[in-house]
Amino acid sequence: MSKQDRIEPRRLKGFRDYLPDLMSRRLAVMDTIRREARLAGFQVIGTPALEYAEILLGQGGEETDKQVYRFTDHGDRAVALRFDLTVPFARFVAEHQGELAFPFKKLQMGDVWRGENTQKGRYREFTQCDLDIIGIDAPAADVDILAVFHRILSEAKLGGPFTISIGHRLILSALIRKTLPGLAGGAETGALVAIDKLAKIGRDGVLRLLSALPGATEAGAGELLATLTTKDQAGDTDLARIAALLGEGDSAQAAEIQRLRETVQTLRGVAKPTAGGGRFVVDLTIARGLGYYTGIVFETTLDELDGFGSVCSGGRYNDLASRFSSRELPGVGGSIGLDRLVAGLEELGRVGRSAEGLVFIAVATADARGYAFELASDLRRAGIAADVGMHPKLGNQFKHADRLGCPVVVTVGSDERERRTVAIKTMADGVERRDLPASELVGELRAVLASQ
Amino acid sequence: MSKQDRIEPRRLKGFRDYLPDLMSRRLAVMDTIRREARLAGFQVIGTPALEYAEILLGQGGEETDKQVYRFTDHGDRAVALRFDLTVPFARFVAEHQGELAFPFKKLQMGDVWRGENTQKGRYREFTQCDLDIIGIDAPAADVDILAVFHRILSEAKLGGPFTISIGHRLILSALIRKTLPGLAGGAETGALVAIDKLAKIGRDGVLRLLSALPGATEAGAGELLATLTTKDQAGDTDLARIAALLGEGDSAQAAEIQRLRETVQTLRGVAKPTAGGGRFVVDLTIARGLGYYTGIVFETTLDELDGFGSVCSGGRYNDLASRFSSRELPGVGGSIGLDRLVAGLEELGRVGRSAEGLVFIAVATADARGYAFELASDLRRAGIAADVGMHPKLGNQFKHADRLGCPVVVTVGSDERERRTVAIKTMADGVERRDLPASELVGELRAVLASQ
Repeated sequence: MSKQDRIEPRRLKGFRDYLPDLMSRRLAVMDTIRREARLAGFQVIGTPALEYAEILLGQGGEETDKQVYRFTDHGDRAVALRFDLTVPFARFVAEHQGELAFPFKKLQMGDVWRGENTQKGRYREFTQCDLDIIGIDAPAADVDILAVFHRILSEAKLGGPFTISIGHRLILSALIRKTLPGLAGGAETGALVAIDKLAKIGRDGVLRLLSALPGATEAGAGELLATLTTKDQAGDTDLARIAALLGEGDSAQAAEIQRLRETVQTLRGVAKPTAGGGRFVVDLTIARGLGYYTGIVFETTLDELDGFGSVCSGGRYNDLASRFSSRELPGVGGSIGLDRLVAGLEELGRVGRSAEGLVFIAVATADARGYAFELASDLRRAGIAADVGMHPKLGNQFKHADRLGCPVVVTVGSDERERRTVAIKTMADGVERRDLPASELVGELRAVLASQ
Repeated sequence: MSKQDRIEPRRLKGFRDYLPDLMSRRLAVMDTIRREARLAGFQVIGTPALEYAEILLGQGGEETDKQVYRFTDHGDRAVALRFDLTVPFARFVAEHQGELAFPFKKLQMGDVWRGENTQKGRYREFTQCDLDIIGIDAPAADVDILAVFHRILSEAKLGGPFTISIGHRLILSALIRKTLPGLAGGAETGALVAIDKLAKIGRDGVLRLLSALPGATEAGAGELLATLTTKDQAGDTDLARIAALLGEGDSAQAAEIQRLRETVQTLRGVAKPTAGGGRFVVDLTIARGLGYYTGIVFETTLDELDGFGSVCSGGRYNDLASRFSSRELPGVGGSIGLDRLVAGLEELGRVGRSAEGLVFIAVATADARGYAFELASDLRRAGIAADVGMHPKLGNQFKHADRLGCPVVVTVGSDERERRTVAIKTMADGVERRDLPASELVGELRAVLASQ
């Protein structure tokens, strides 16, 4: 093709290629999520990238609607790319409710698209990993969902401690109503949004925002914030103080407080023997902004990364599919931000290479090629990753092995082929060994790779 | 939400939801592909779903262009959803050539979108799994790519024999020119297309198509077809006859014939010890239609499914990224049709359930919930999948376990909690056992699950 006809190989802004090292990190985390979800009885589902626009729009607020990629397809249908996995999941459950056994425990991992402004670390295509338990409002479901996220994060090779902070939307709302009784109708949401900013703008900032709400008093705002941030001896928000403040009258709130207490107590029993250092904390300042939550809400932070934000969050909602079905489907669930979690692992230096442990078989003479592939086949069958040299020159093959980071190079030529032997070189120390019988290669490499 | 405001939960035509059983089959095949690719030194990459339209269009022919989902994004850019993984991969290699070590061996798995007419088994969203070795034109690359596909299909739990049929585009073209020397310019492509239809329309049909090409003779068409379909004792296309027909003069063709011979010979040496029954056959009637192939081409059929078509195909091409880069990048690669392969497995009855081997822990009294989750945590940590009952009534929990197909139900109540024991019931025979110490549960369940 002539130079003039050539097209510049460019990508859309906010869209990424995944090169092998980054991809292998993403896959390692996704494999961990899938394995732990399976062990906890979650089943994997999938939904299409494209949906009817009417299914997706009007769900995430005006700002989200603006960001949705929408267009008209070949059949003149108004369609849109999904911007999250929650709305398609609601459609999925409504459509397939007859085929599912409730409580239905599901994992869905998939890409979503939002045409938002690209900032540092913000992409227009990113991956969500959602776990939900749908069809039941039971304490066991709250425990189960938090236990599986705890397991996933314990196994995700974070290598450091993390904290799952658990709040409660109903208790928080009751507290807001109690301390700021004059609050005008829509202002309760404003109070939630203000409290959500505590980590960002500090106590004084939140106090100013709360006091400025229509119908609020400075004294009430102060009492609210003091109540939310007072800790008991275990480091939890002081639930006894909250129970006392809300009073005996409200038995529904008392029951929710008791349920929250028991949930955290059970989780601590379950999590105790785990290494990894993940802990559960009751923190009523967790508000989860404008969400549709109606029970527990939670966020997860990596203790070593201050100000990094939440890598896993969610909560209880009590009407997943009301737009699509008359059936009431309460649920509890959460989402792992894969890109954010992988970025966190990178920042903590917990990264590997995509070709880790790859053995390279160099071919010294063309007549040994078939022999090299036989050896490669034996190694692969034994679970040892093996590559075969393709460059005509042996020197170039060694250079390639070095660039891939292969810890060992096995060399074969006419001699080796005839005598069914190999030469073997460990790259770290340059030590070579000749005349190793081919039959001993698997055992020898296992020992060498284990010592790396 | 009122009934009037409700939206019908419908999907776009040609788009599928993946329910748990189907999804688990897809994931099992994808895991096999990824594992075998890794063992053979392939690295996984990813590219965006959306690209600039100019990158994608004009590549797959007019028919494909019409099927591409294209639209204008928020920034007034003409964008399109990828219709295959090959064109984005070419853009990827051109853009990142400085960051890659050649030969670069890659696996990419991802969804692609085509707005084509929906027929039985044709979807507008489907998954491709592509493996390629790029940056070298070497016999070793031909062997390596075919060996890895052979391994994947051997390990994909097909449980039955399959055949990888290998043709060669250059040799086939030379044969067409030799037997139909009067063929007009564009008619060689017509001959390839005609030969590609052999399985569908039979010898007589192909003969008619070939004879009708401008400049063709019936005698020439007959000789071509006879030459292509004459087998030697090994069941391969008779390459000696082809070499003789092409004559001594054409040393390039002679070299290609020799390379094809050696490739198949090496592959047979490598594949020999494999169970699974996959075999390699030289079949020069494999033409792969209008593709851009310049060397070996291959297709794979499941021997037990007559007329099912190819589940894995590809070939050598000698200029992957010429639209984007002046660098010449020869390669060899192929694609596994995931949906087709899974459909094949289903037709052969080789399917499992998504919740296979899941142990159910039923909770008889609410005070035993924490104990149940401790047991579940122990099992999960030991690699045994465990679910905890959430329905208030024990009977409903057992019904749910039954619906999930759980082979074993463990029951705990106040008594069991106090004495740290469990009751255990195997669902197949209904046999119950009480008072099993919790400390023996993992061992007991391993034995029970192994005997299922």
